[in-house]
Amino acid sequence: MFKVNENYLKLPGSYLFSTIGKKVNAYSAAHPEAKIIRLGIGDVTQPLAPVIIEALHDAVNEMGDAATFHGYAPDLGYEFLRNAIADNDYKARGCDIAPDEIFVSDGAKCDCGNIQEIFSLDNKIAVCDPVYPVYVDSNVMAGRTGSYDSEKETWSNVIYMPCTADNGFAPELPKEVPDLIYLCFPNNPTGAVVSKAQLQDFVDYANKNGSVILYDAAYEAYISEPDIPHSIYECEGARTCAIEFHSFSKNAGFTGVRLGYTVIPKELKAGDVSLHALWARRHGTKYNGAPYIVQKAGAAVYTEEGKAQLKKQVDYYMNNARYIYNGLKEAGYTVSGGVNAPYIWLKAPNGMTSWEFFDYLLEKVNVVGTPGSGFGPSGETYFRLTAFGSYENTVEAVERIKSL
Amino acid sequence: MFKVNENYLKLPGSYLFSTIGKKVNAYSAAHPEAKIIRLGIGDVTQPLAPVIIEALHDAVNEMGDAATFHGYAPDLGYEFLRNAIADNDYKARGCDIAPDEIFVSDGAKCDCGNIQEIFSLDNKIAVCDPVYPVYVDSNVMAGRTGSYDSEKETWSNVIYMPCTADNGFAPELPKEVPDLIYLCFPNNPTGAVVSKAQLQDFVDYANKNGSVILYDAAYEAYISEPDIPHSIYECEGARTCAIEFHSFSKNAGFTGVRLGYTVIPKELKAGDVSLHALWARRHGTKYNGAPYIVQKAGAAVYTEEGKAQLKKQVDYYMNNARYIYNGLKEAGYTVSGGVNAPYIWLKAPNGMTSWEFFDYLLEKVNVVGTPGSGFGPSGETYFRLTAFGSYENTVEAVERIKSL
Repeated sequence: MFKVNENYLKLPGSYLFSTIGKKVNAYSAAHPEAKIIRLGIGDVTQPLAPVIIEALHDAVNEMGDAATFHGYAPDLGYEFLRNAIADNDYKARGCDIAPDEIFVSDGAKCDCGNIQEIFSLDNKIAVCDPVYPVYVDSNVMAGRTGSYDSEKETWSNVIYMPCTADNGFAPELPKEVPDLIYLCFPNNPTGAVVSKAQLQDFVDYANKNGSVILYDAAYEAYISEPDIPHSIYECEGARTCAIEFHSFSKNAGFTGVRLGYTVIPKELKAGDVSLHALWARRHGTKYNGAPYIVQKAGAAVYTEEGKAQLKKQVDYYMNNARYIYNGLKEAGYTVSGGVNAPYIWLKAPNGMTSWEFFDYLLEKVNVVGTPGSGFGPSGETYFRLTAFGSYENTVEAVERIKSL
Repeated sequence: MFKVNENYLKLPGSYLFSTIGKKVNAYSAAHPEAKIIRLGIGDVTQPLAPVIIEALHDAVNEMGDAATFHGYAPDLGYEFLRNAIADNDYKARGCDIAPDEIFVSDGAKCDCGNIQEIFSLDNKIAVCDPVYPVYVDSNVMAGRTGSYDSEKETWSNVIYMPCTADNGFAPELPKEVPDLIYLCFPNNPTGAVVSKAQLQDFVDYANKNGSVILYDAAYEAYISEPDIPHSIYECEGARTCAIEFHSFSKNAGFTGVRLGYTVIPKELKAGDVSLHALWARRHGTKYNGAPYIVQKAGAAVYTEEGKAQLKKQVDYYMNNARYIYNGLKEAGYTVSGGVNAPYIWLKAPNGMTSWEFFDYLLEKVNVVGTPGSGFGPSGETYFRLTAFGSYENTVEAVERIKSL
């Protein structure tokens, strides 16, 4: 008689954003007249830039002609895209990353979720608290996290690095040494960043202790201040301790197009075993490449025209971020984030819990955000708003919240 | 100090098709003048049908307009596609599968590789021998397969169901009861099929013994004879014991477009735990949906125009299959498959091993096939040719082989 993976049964509740979706749908069904504004899930709203649209049409035409048709993509991704990534995201920033250290995929969420497979089940993870749920949940599913304490909302075998107002939402180096350290900067959900010196401390710590840093750089395009690292490979020694994840979802609006990449430097080894080789094996065995037309669209992101058009798109969302930040601050809220990230992190007013504030906003002013507690215990009483709405909706949502 | 997943290190050699690719590239580099014909990897060569191209262009245009832009897709896939699948692939065949039992994904290879995650690591698998390598390798990576015997080329904790000329390449019911049974019909690599009665025996066996059948129906569009089941849900009782995988790669030429789906009926349970719920959780946590434009292209497959155009495409490849089958038969080869599948399975001549024949064909006539031994020990001395080349190349390859 077959048995299921019992680790799945340990997961408390459903995936955060599924829960939010269900709550909003239920409210909407009961109040069909309500004009709900969604600043919850980090989904973009601006259409794809013209240069991307053109690249997609061109690639579609290629697929319609036997002479230019493309079947299975190369395991690591097309060279034209890997070269563009290496040149623009790394060489241009002084980082030494070769095209064949880049694995193109259908998105950073998949890669962040799957990367733990190449590590031992004995490995212990450290995560920021609050944190993007995928890092923890994928390890729960694999059986690395021990048992769940539903009161504390923590796992017995996970090292938590609290990110609170006290430390400026930047984690301290963990006292107990983890094997795997998940970091995400600019941060989801807090919108916080770390300086290059702070990130260098983590790299030095990992190299000294034999830890691997799993660095999620999904929001790097939103960095507006100097001295904030765009890639962990800007730090010395990162090639021997860090894997980096990139998304095209936020810098190019690809949430519904699906493209990302993961970098594993060839020096990153456990003894003789290269993590690059293990990930290549996983890619070859359980994955079949991102669509050709999507990889062509990805390459368009790196053209001069693409960069100019996408800068405008990022500016559009960051204008929303400023509007939310300033509006809520004026209204007396405690607010952070929003300067180098498309997320605004605010304290729920009047001692409300995160979910109480979620319900309050949904019911009173029909605005949807994300409860901070959904990201971990240190997120309790906090709330995340995204800057990915339209400008008009963003303005209206802020006005509605201010009216409360 | 972090450790790697030691199970990965047990995998012998590299993924079959990566090895073939490297061998062919090496030969090609040494003989740049050689006109190599590739009938090895099962990659299609015909361009996307006009109705698909039109659907892609239309969807790309939608993505370029804020009013019709699509961000994150729903977890299970868009309803328009799930409805089309349920109606055409199931209801039309008398199978009772609801749209919300269908999970749209980026391809059957990913789903076949990932499905094992929702089962216990204690579960024992059964596979046909020869077999598509992903089923075994993904279980090796998870640690279910025991140790590898490099002489026999078998795993100590895998139940092999030999598919040989003696049993018409159709597996017998295993004597030792497995927890998970991988089946693929029409079969890759042998091109063999099973009748509805034979498949019903497996369904009855699984229900009686508490096994789950993981049924890969990637090649169902190539079935030309009556009484060959297109779906396992044509068998009575399959809803309580079977998961089915579908690909758009072979029926619609989507190898470079990436689309597939997996069906998990809601009755399929271990005690109270529904496998549907577990897979939904995995999808929600580690996957982010197939691209909107690709799902629209998938829906075009089910239009009347789409069906007509794709029937022609399948006929084109099946004409190749007949040409290979008849040509090799005339030349004195022992051949099977090719009637309900795009694969021709032949016996290497003169006592050659599979890899010897691979090298022989590559070097003597510059034709690339797939060594049968790469699919399992019972594939030794066999060889797979695919019908997915162009007609011109297929004819020339057959003439070259006949000239030997």
